Amino acid sequence: MSLPKSVTIVEVGPRDGFQLESRILPTDLKLDIITGLAAAGLKHIQVASFVSPKRVPQMADAEDLVRRLPKTPSVTFFGLALNTAGVTRAGEAGLSCIEVSISASDAHSRKNAGMSHEAALAEGERMVALARSAGMVVTASIQCAFGCVYEGAVPAARVLRAARMFADAGVARLTLADTTGMGTPPAVEGMLTALDAASAAVPMGLHLHDTRGLGLVNAAAGLRCGVTFFDTALGGMGGCPFVPGAAGNIATEDTVHLMAAMGAATGVDWRQVASCTRRLSAFLGRDLPGKLYRMA
Amino acid sequence: MSLPKSVTIVEVGPRDGFQLESRILPTDLKLDIITGLAAAGLKHIQVASFVSPKRVPQMADAEDLVRRLPKTPSVTFFGLALNTAGVTRAGEAGLSCIEVSISASDAHSRKNAGMSHEAALAEGERMVALARSAGMVVTASIQCAFGCVYEGAVPAARVLRAARMFADAGVARLTLADTTGMGTPPAVEGMLTALDAASAAVPMGLHLHDTRGLGLVNAAAGLRCGVTFFDTALGGMGGCPFVPGAAGNIATEDTVHLMAAMGAATGVDWRQVASCTRRLSAFLGRDLPGKLYRMA
Repeated sequence: MSLPKSVTIVEVGPRDGFQLESRILPTDLKLDIITGLAAAGLKHIQVASFVSPKRVPQMADAEDLVRRLPKTPSVTFFGLALNTAGVTRAGEAGLSCIEVSISASDAHSRKNAGMSHEAALAEGERMVALARSAGMVVTASIQCAFGCVYEGAVPAARVLRAARMFADAGVARLTLADTTGMGTPPAVEGMLTALDAASAAVPMGLHLHDTRGLGLVNAAAGLRCGVTFFDTALGGMGGCPFVPGAAGNIATEDTVHLMAAMGAATGVDWRQVASCTRRLSAFLGRDLPGKLYRMA
Repeated sequence: MSLPKSVTIVEVGPRDGFQLESRILPTDLKLDIITGLAAAGLKHIQVASFVSPKRVPQMADAEDLVRRLPKTPSVTFFGLALNTAGVTRAGEAGLSCIEVSISASDAHSRKNAGMSHEAALAEGERMVALARSAGMVVTASIQCAFGCVYEGAVPAARVLRAARMFADAGVARLTLADTTGMGTPPAVEGMLTALDAASAAVPMGLHLHDTRGLGLVNAAAGLRCGVTFFDTALGGMGGCPFVPGAAGNIATEDTVHLMAAMGAATGVDWRQVASCTRRLSAFLGRDLPGKLYRMA
C-alpha cells in the first residue's frame, strides 16, 4: 500500500484553539500568531468562527480580525459557520472561503448550533448554496462523526447521508470531525471506506481531537486510507465549548513530524510553528498539550 | 493482515515513572500503587531498578520494597538491572524475574550505565548467564534502539548484534526501548522486520516514550507487526534521568484503550489503573501526561 507523498495541514488553532480560552486573546496577538503560522508554511488557516458573540465571546472580533489579516495571496484564510447568518457575516467581512459545519449528533447539534440534526442538515444545504452563490469556496465538516459524549455511538447512516448531501451540493472538501475524541483506527478506516462510495470525488479531511490519546494514531490511520487534509492546532490547543472534558486538537508540530516520518511532505516548518506556540503558552501561563514545541 | 487478538501490558511505572520524581515516593505509597495495579489486572509489573542509590535515590528502597510485595502468584513482579551487581541484588532481594538492559548508544550507555556500549554488551551476556544460573527468568531490553539524543541515529547493526547476543543467551523476551522518543512507525516496522531474522523465536516487546507525541502511533505500528508485549506506565509517567527533555512512557490506560479498539484484549481494567494514577497525581500535585485517566 503506498501512502500519499504529500498532505495539506489545515491550521485551525486560531478558531478551535482560541475559542476555548477563558483569557480572551487580543486581536493584535491573534494577528501576530496567524502571521507567524503563515510564515511557517501553513497555506490553510481557519481564523475565526462566525457564531454568536454572546455564546462564544472569544470570536467576537471575527470581522475586525478578518479586515486586518495579512495580504498573503498564497494562503487561504477561512472562517467557520454553523448557519446561514454566519456565512453571510463571513462573506461580508471579506472572506472568500468558508467551512460550513453540522453535527451528526442530535444532542450535540442542539447544544452547539441550537438546532436538531435534521434542521442542521437542511441548514447545511442552504449554507453551501448561499456561499457558492456569493462566489465563495466552500468546504464542509461533519462533527461527532465518530461518536458523541451525549449520545454515544452515532449512526453511520447519518454521517453518510450528510456526506452525500454535501458532496451533491458541491463542496470542495469534506472533513470528518472527531469532536469528542472517540474515534479509533478501525472506526476511521471503516467510515472512510464507507464514505468512499458516498462522496466519491470530494477530497476528504480529518479533524481529530486527542481526548483519549488516539489523535495521531487516527491521523496515521487516515493517511493509510489516503486522506490528504488534516486539521491541526498549534501546540494541540482546542476543544469544543459544548463538549464536556473535550481536549485539544492534534498538534500542528507533532502532526507535521508524524507526516514527515511517514514520507508525506507538508511544506510546514514545525520549529516556526513551535515558536508561535511558545508565545501563546507564555501568554496563557501554562503548558499546552503538544509535545514537540517543547523541544524546538 | 490479522492483528494479535491479545497482548500483554507490562507495567513499568513503579520503576520508570517513580525514578524520575524529585519528590521521592514513600515505600508504603509505592506498595499501595503496585497492589492497585495488580488488582487492575496487570500481570507483569516492574517494581524497581537495582542501580546506585546515590545516582537514583528514588530506587534506594528496592530491597525493602521487594520484601514487602503482595503475595500474588499470578503476577510477575520484576526488577531492572544494568550490571551484574544489580542482578545479584535483585536475586538476593527475592525476585525470580529480572530485566537486564543495555543501551545501543555509546554516549547514553556511558551516562546511564557508566560503561561503553561494547562493555555493556559483554556485561549483558554476563548478566543473563548469572541470572539464569540463579534460576531467574530473564528478559532483556535494548535502550536507544531508535536513536539517541546524544548520538542521533543509532546504527541498526548495533541493535541487531545486541539482539542476537540476547537471543543466543536465552532470554525469555526481548524489548526494544525507544528511550528518547525518536521512533517512528517506519523505524519500528523496519527494526522489527530486521530483528525477525536475528532473534527468531524470542517474543518481542516495545518500550515507547511519548517525547515527540508518537508513542501510541508506534505502539499501533508494533501491533501491526505482531508485537504482543508493550511496556507502559500508569498515567504516562516516566522518562530517563540521563536523557535531557525525556518525556513519559505511553500511558497504561491509553494503551489498554488503543489495544481494545484494535481488537487486542489485555485483561486490564483501565479505570482501575486510572484510580491509581489519580492518587499519584494528587500526591505529586500535578497532572500527568496520560489522557484517559482524567475521564474515569
